Amino acid sequence: MGIKTAKRRWTALLGIKNARFSATARKPYERTTFATDVEAGGVLKVTTKQQLQQIITIANDESVPIYPISTGKNFGYGSKVPTHHGAIVVDLSGMNKITRFDEVHGTLSVEPGVTFEQVHRFLTAQNSEFSIAGTGSTPTSSLIGNALERGIGKGLASNRIDNICHLEVILANGKCIHTGLGRFDNAKGKDMTKLGPGPLLDGLFTQSNLGVVTEMTFWLTPIPKAFTTFVYCLKDDSTLPQVIDALRVLKQRDILRSSTTLFNDHRILGYMGKYPWDLCDGSRSLTDDEIKIALQRSLPVVGKWYGDGALFCHSRAQAKADIKLIKDALGGLVSNLIFFREPYVSIASKILRFINKFSRKPFVDPTEIYFRKSMYLGHPLPITQTLGSTYIRKRINVPAASQIDPDKDKCGTYWMGPIVPFEGKDIESATQIIKEVITGYGYEPAMTLQCISARQIDIIISISFDRELDGEDANAKACHDTLLQKLYQAGYYPYRLGNQSQTRLPAPDDDYLQFVTTIKKALDTNNILAPGRYDFTAQAAPPIDVHKSNKAVP
Amino acid sequence: MGIKTAKRRWTALLGIKNARFSATARKPYERTTFATDVEAGGVLKVTTKQQLQQIITIANDESVPIYPISTGKNFGYGSKVPTHHGAIVVDLSGMNKITRFDEVHGTLSVEPGVTFEQVHRFLTAQNSEFSIAGTGSTPTSSLIGNALERGIGKGLASNRIDNICHLEVILANGKCIHTGLGRFDNAKGKDMTKLGPGPLLDGLFTQSNLGVVTEMTFWLTPIPKAFTTFVYCLKDDSTLPQVIDALRVLKQRDILRSSTTLFNDHRILGYMGKYPWDLCDGSRSLTDDEIKIALQRSLPVVGKWYGDGALFCHSRAQAKADIKLIKDALGGLVSNLIFFREPYVSIASKILRFINKFSRKPFVDPTEIYFRKSMYLGHPLPITQTLGSTYIRKRINVPAASQIDPDKDKCGTYWMGPIVPFEGKDIESATQIIKEVITGYGYEPAMTLQCISARQIDIIISISFDRELDGEDANAKACHDTLLQKLYQAGYYPYRLGNQSQTRLPAPDDDYLQFVTTIKKALDTNNILAPGRYDFTAQAAPPIDVHKSNKAVP
Repeated sequence: MGIKTAKRRWTALLGIKNARFSATARKPYERTTFATDVEAGGVLKVTTKQQLQQIITIANDESVPIYPISTGKNFGYGSKVPTHHGAIVVDLSGMNKITRFDEVHGTLSVEPGVTFEQVHRFLTAQNSEFSIAGTGSTPTSSLIGNALERGIGKGLASNRIDNICHLEVILANGKCIHTGLGRFDNAKGKDMTKLGPGPLLDGLFTQSNLGVVTEMTFWLTPIPKAFTTFVYCLKDDSTLPQVIDALRVLKQRDILRSSTTLFNDHRILGYMGKYPWDLCDGSRSLTDDEIKIALQRSLPVVGKWYGDGALFCHSRAQAKADIKLIKDALGGLVSNLIFFREPYVSIASKILRFINKFSRKPFVDPTEIYFRKSMYLGHPLPITQTLGSTYIRKRINVPAASQIDPDKDKCGTYWMGPIVPFEGKDIESATQIIKEVITGYGYEPAMTLQCISARQIDIIISISFDRELDGEDANAKACHDTLLQKLYQAGYYPYRLGNQSQTRLPAPDDDYLQFVTTIKKALDTNNILAPGRYDFTAQAAPPIDVHKSNKAVP
Repeated sequence: MGIKTAKRRWTALLGIKNARFSATARKPYERTTFATDVEAGGVLKVTTKQQLQQIITIANDESVPIYPISTGKNFGYGSKVPTHHGAIVVDLSGMNKITRFDEVHGTLSVEPGVTFEQVHRFLTAQNSEFSIAGTGSTPTSSLIGNALERGIGKGLASNRIDNICHLEVILANGKCIHTGLGRFDNAKGKDMTKLGPGPLLDGLFTQSNLGVVTEMTFWLTPIPKAFTTFVYCLKDDSTLPQVIDALRVLKQRDILRSSTTLFNDHRILGYMGKYPWDLCDGSRSLTDDEIKIALQRSLPVVGKWYGDGALFCHSRAQAKADIKLIKDALGGLVSNLIFFREPYVSIASKILRFINKFSRKPFVDPTEIYFRKSMYLGHPLPITQTLGSTYIRKRINVPAASQIDPDKDKCGTYWMGPIVPFEGKDIESATQIIKEVITGYGYEPAMTLQCISARQIDIIISISFDRELDGEDANAKACHDTLLQKLYQAGYYPYRLGNQSQTRLPAPDDDYLQFVTTIKKALDTNNILAPGRYDFTAQAAPPIDVHKSNKAVP
């Protein structure tokens, strides 16, 4: 393997500042929120498409595998670490131009390094009437990275992959193609449609190792004139199936058009970042009583599940009619169903903030309201909730937004997202499996139910632990592997894979493996592009060594 | 080429009734709504997936190209005629089972031979709360065929390709794969999501020759509790750009959620099927005055453009609020904006039918209202409007629904559908090109503006002529080819191709051709599957011989 020659040629191309192979330079690309012994062979920092094409040519010439990342904020799934031992990380965060913006049609085209924060600043500066569905992750994450992993946002365009088009892709042979109408330079609709004569290729480059996406167009949502959010609470698990069935009907009927979410008590505790160390030493899951006490310390309402949603309405009458239909459907099943209508929510929030200054226990948490509003309208404040929750088992305070770094701070976290039919009985059975397995290993079964369509709920699970404690890396890994297996055996397959799970799916029941192998071989003869990333050609999942936790089950 | 051996083996497999190669048997597969000299090598009628796999094996062994069709109702684009001279048509209309139906999630899985009519009967028999977006084509057309060509329906799920998942595909090597979660037999969400870990493959098998789709799942829409349709009229072309811009804002804001359409006067005349032979002998386009007179004979309101839309609301208040927003946006720009609310529309329609019995000129055409309602809720009556319009230049009456056969009756028709950005100025410029070219060749510039998203309008154009008149085949072909070229030169590329246009696109501006060639070669080594169908590997468009019509321009 011509690794030496490759390094020399890459250095000549990019300069020693941008082609780095030392242990220090490699370090940030070798650590994530769980144990890994995969080494990065080095890092190449790229700022132009032409550089990327030349890097790929060299990789082919010298048969050295590369692993492209956008901004690498893939926390809980492997961060910046390659899926192949020794692969050279190609860091595209320097390709950070907003390349096109159209205020008439609400389209925005970006390079891989462009972040949510950057887009928010840009749209604000443009005084745009459009917003982008917010991300639950850090505002410094990449739009393209998020879309390619099929990330879920908040808002009307929450299922991000449904709201993109016109990908520019550099292939493993260095050639460049455009999806949709993009192959014709003069096509007027190229940023406005996924369609175009001939096979559609967008999907082929998501969750795949078949090409490097260097540009993508996102579809924005107009800021609604009568924006309304709502929250509600479920006191216990007993009504969850009925609530899910009621939400499904609201989604099917297109009454609840934007994303809607349910968070369980463990997830909310993680967002608050206040683990009750006085009640439990973190060696086991919190009991129902303990989590209730912990939540009571900060929240006005304590429950098992917290729901939220938003109405993107454009008149008061429209919002009123939708609210009525939602109240009719959910009112009898949930408690504390509250709607916040603009502009009242902004005013009320200000008043509440003032009252809360003098109250030990806030009536309603205004930060929460603001958090939701900014999420739905894609205006990321320096939020810390999601990433902050990875610190839940750490005996340190969650750092300030700019300092949060779960990889460096050894916050243990595995994320996992099984796809579950939008039906009460399925949610009941899947959440039961999750609770049993995770508490069996002594962790908090933190769950978010992302209702991404009228038919599909992704249960976003995190397993959080302290990587600095002996045995925790191995115990958490066993927990992750067991849970993944138990879920797919029950028919609930993950919507996304991480470095921890790329080879952990069972063998397909059809000729799929042969098909993807054929495609991969045809497009990447030397297998230089991200080997092991969504690459099912290697093998089916090895049998899992279920070395059951010996911790006390609460 | 082992064509003789292939025929013998196919006959042994299917029997002489289902493997036919005589001129008589081939005839229906060799005629369409325009001139073609492509011959079908024969026809194989298939009823099972296993038969299809064996047919493909034989095709590979003997290197004989095959051309699969669903029900072959691809009128205006080539009907059942292969794209490759001598290819054997594989007729899948006998694979007509509804394989799965789920009333909870509103999903329906079908084989290629299942028609819209059949699904309507099925859902009615099930007393289902769901409906499928209706088709503008004949009710005897295939759901799968329609979806794979990216057909557009009416209703909430009008962009059909956005509302399908879980394709079963037989590849050119006879292997079988499933898209989405379908590769895992036990996956509970496989009919509920397009997603699943790894690259998404659905798009690859639409408008392509990379596989034969033998099963597909469709997502249905619940029948709304407060269904409302509306119609309006534009007296002339001058306000069209403003109306388009207003409609875009309504679509962007998700106020107008279902499909919405504008039909021009020539299109409406086609639907009515009453060409004014007393005013014009069909040797030139109708003048503005003539078409006005022709429309006046049947319609209470005469205009240049007729718009329609529907509100899938679930309460009276919701419908009222939406109607208000639509009136505010369109009211000042259009005339005769009328909303029909259920149950009033059914009652009113009955009364009008009664009144119309005694009136020479009907006040509002109730058939039109019924037609729209049935279309939106996917309940196809034996409608004749769309296919009937292909008879506009024939001096015979449109046959009864069951007898309509444009191929056999030598109704000349080319369909074409350029993708245009959803903006007044683009619609103005594209419709201008269409009018100029089509009237230049002496035909009616019949257009439907299908607003398929907030960003995209497909202008559905038909060029109708009488194939039995001397010179018409050649003149209409020149008209089609010129129009296609002028439109793409202006940046408006077709959403779909027919046998008439498969090789008429310009060369792409990137490495797309090399990419699709690589994929095709990898998946279909012997090039046996539908060569020439969305197969851009052959060549770019040849220069068009613009032998301008010598007919009088009105």
